[in-house]
Amino acid sequence: MYVEQADRQQLQRWQEELSANHRNFVSSKLNLDLTRGKPSANQLSLADALDGILQGNYVSDEGVDTRNYGGLDGLPAMRQLAAEILGVNSDEIMVGGNSSLTLMYFSVLFAWQFGLSGPDSAWRHEETVKFLCPVPGYDRHFAICEEFGIEMVNVPMNDNGPDMDAVEALIRNDSSIKGIWCVPKYSNPAGCIYSAATIERLAGLGTIAATNFRVFYDNAYAVHDLVDKPAELANIREFCERHGTEDSVLQFGSTSKVTFAGAGVAFMAASKTNLSAMKKHLGIATIGPDKVNQLRHLKMIGTMAELRNHMARHAELLRPRFACVLKHLEENFRDSDLGEWSSPDGGYFISFDTRPGLANAVIQLAAEAGVKLTPAGATFPYGKDPDDKNIRLAPSFPTVEDIDRAMAVFCNAVKLASVNQQLEA
Amino acid sequence: MYVEQADRQQLQRWQEELSANHRNFVSSKLNLDLTRGKPSANQLSLADALDGILQGNYVSDEGVDTRNYGGLDGLPAMRQLAAEILGVNSDEIMVGGNSSLTLMYFSVLFAWQFGLSGPDSAWRHEETVKFLCPVPGYDRHFAICEEFGIEMVNVPMNDNGPDMDAVEALIRNDSSIKGIWCVPKYSNPAGCIYSAATIERLAGLGTIAATNFRVFYDNAYAVHDLVDKPAELANIREFCERHGTEDSVLQFGSTSKVTFAGAGVAFMAASKTNLSAMKKHLGIATIGPDKVNQLRHLKMIGTMAELRNHMARHAELLRPRFACVLKHLEENFRDSDLGEWSSPDGGYFISFDTRPGLANAVIQLAAEAGVKLTPAGATFPYGKDPDDKNIRLAPSFPTVEDIDRAMAVFCNAVKLASVNQQLEA
Repeated sequence: MYVEQADRQQLQRWQEELSANHRNFVSSKLNLDLTRGKPSANQLSLADALDGILQGNYVSDEGVDTRNYGGLDGLPAMRQLAAEILGVNSDEIMVGGNSSLTLMYFSVLFAWQFGLSGPDSAWRHEETVKFLCPVPGYDRHFAICEEFGIEMVNVPMNDNGPDMDAVEALIRNDSSIKGIWCVPKYSNPAGCIYSAATIERLAGLGTIAATNFRVFYDNAYAVHDLVDKPAELANIREFCERHGTEDSVLQFGSTSKVTFAGAGVAFMAASKTNLSAMKKHLGIATIGPDKVNQLRHLKMIGTMAELRNHMARHAELLRPRFACVLKHLEENFRDSDLGEWSSPDGGYFISFDTRPGLANAVIQLAAEAGVKLTPAGATFPYGKDPDDKNIRLAPSFPTVEDIDRAMAVFCNAVKLASVNQQLEA
Repeated sequence: MYVEQADRQQLQRWQEELSANHRNFVSSKLNLDLTRGKPSANQLSLADALDGILQGNYVSDEGVDTRNYGGLDGLPAMRQLAAEILGVNSDEIMVGGNSSLTLMYFSVLFAWQFGLSGPDSAWRHEETVKFLCPVPGYDRHFAICEEFGIEMVNVPMNDNGPDMDAVEALIRNDSSIKGIWCVPKYSNPAGCIYSAATIERLAGLGTIAATNFRVFYDNAYAVHDLVDKPAELANIREFCERHGTEDSVLQFGSTSKVTFAGAGVAFMAASKTNLSAMKKHLGIATIGPDKVNQLRHLKMIGTMAELRNHMARHAELLRPRFACVLKHLEENFRDSDLGEWSSPDGGYFISFDTRPGLANAVIQLAAEAGVKLTPAGATFPYGKDPDDKNIRLAPSFPTVEDIDRAMAVFCNAVKLASVNQQLEA
């Protein structure tokens, strides 16, 4: 279906047919949801052995009684595992709480209020503070910026990651830029893996940016592959070492989408300067993270081999769901001018771009027919997609049958909205 | 031993004798520690059944899959339990994370940065922000103030709680006072229980203070009684209702000293206005608290009766430790002018006041003899005890035998320092 090449009569025929389909969907009163980037119950059950795994032994291999206070750094073995996941040394790791988002929030907070490299580096002293936001991106990153009144500047995403020409040019011209949000592997929602060249240029930003600039490198999907031989993510820490920019990158990760979404273990990697600032301030805010849960995790996925085996079982559950979405998209839009989409090798999302100006209309049509989609604009700062075209599809949570029904509705909505637009043009 | 009434000869005889004792202690190379207000391994073991208690069922009675994201408020049943502990309605409760200190930190942070009653109420807009600090008090409260540059004003503690005449006079005269730290039951370290009259006056502060003033009411030892029939703490919420000051009090509690110190469940109670501000901002910083751990707690201590039974077992372990400290203090100082101390019915500390100007000297003597005590001044803002007399003794962690040996050293150190001082006078 090529709406641009169709004549008015053809478009009207399509409109009738698609509207009839749509009315059928509406009358069948579906109640489906493709919004939630969260694991299904079956995925969570892969880690059900966590509760009880300690068999009464709460003392870590290093002799720490995990039940008591303390341990702001995390258990040594947990730091080691996190170091392997993020590709750093274990003394560059801090393990904390159940949410990497909280570690990102604290990082922004401490950089804002106290400064990560001394009091003079605190962002609150600056007249304006800006962050670069590769778009489409993750709404919870943007929400942190909005919370602190940090101005967000859109940067385009390419297949290899953020448009680094644009990023470097912006940073060179504007020292009020203090950060950039990155999801380097299976980028949320675009699904791409940043290329080695992109990652080296991100590591190089520390040489051209203000000294209190930080790359917020949210490696949320570090081990979340859908394919057997995934492309490898280049190691940003090695590039930082080469450029002498170790202080300019903060990495984040967690087991939220490995074990339990709400009861996993979060961690961050940073230079000793950054970590010592983080710990100084975090030590005021907490009596230490839940080490018992860290120990549970070590018993279940304490080595990279155990972790990879565990993730392979997630992939088995996720693959048919992603395949179902992609099958619908290919069948409906392969030969069309109606949309473009990603086919990621991992992560949690498929990103779909409608023709410009249609995302909101598609989402409304789908909602009428009982299919909930992520609100238009959610993947952009301030909730504003300038082209009104990006839609994030999250297939992890529903069953394959529900995805199948939801995608039939979705594809019809895309076609109908496109035809409507063309007729109005 | 009354040093004030002793003549020089008597003092010199004592000095010789006490110095000889001290040298003996030093040569026996003890390594004892009375600094740590944390549960002993035996206490922690009372909750060892927590891991595995779910027996594979991660769904709460209300049908929540605790493994997944969400639930910023906490599980309904956990809110109900917290409400009973703190004496409020369950819709005035938020359950979050493993550390009530973190909830206090976030409360100060949000009040500072964003305001708990609208943006205009943010403390950062004020020229000066002050907190009243009843002393002696809890060093971690004071550390939060210091972190944000909040000026701390000492207020004396009486047996019934803070000196409320002083508190009210200060607040009436100074609208830059935005908070007061309170540990109303088994006050840290003084051990007293605030009287009903004190609590009513605390609830009344909202009628005379600035609208963005808050009582930080850290009810850390709400169920931590050592005696069978403890005095009851008056309900501050009821007084607030009577005075129309519901927005002026934030209450905090946790199971850190009920189950696992580092892996318990923390909660706070506040008016709907305060809670909605807390949740608005906390929702940016987290994907929700660990609900699996909440469910574990509900299975073990889900009712007040189960909780009280559990706490009675803690009391059995703590009572001989407190008794040992008190026995030494009574035997050595009952008939003396050398010190005063608390005999708390619960909590974690015994507070000892030396003669003015001696706390630091006593702590140094004890350290020479291998007994670690909390640093002098730690119970005061900025680490400065104006009278250099308060020493916080924490008997929960060591064995009774170790406490016995440590207290012999301590009492000798108090006597020796007192005699030395008197001879130099």
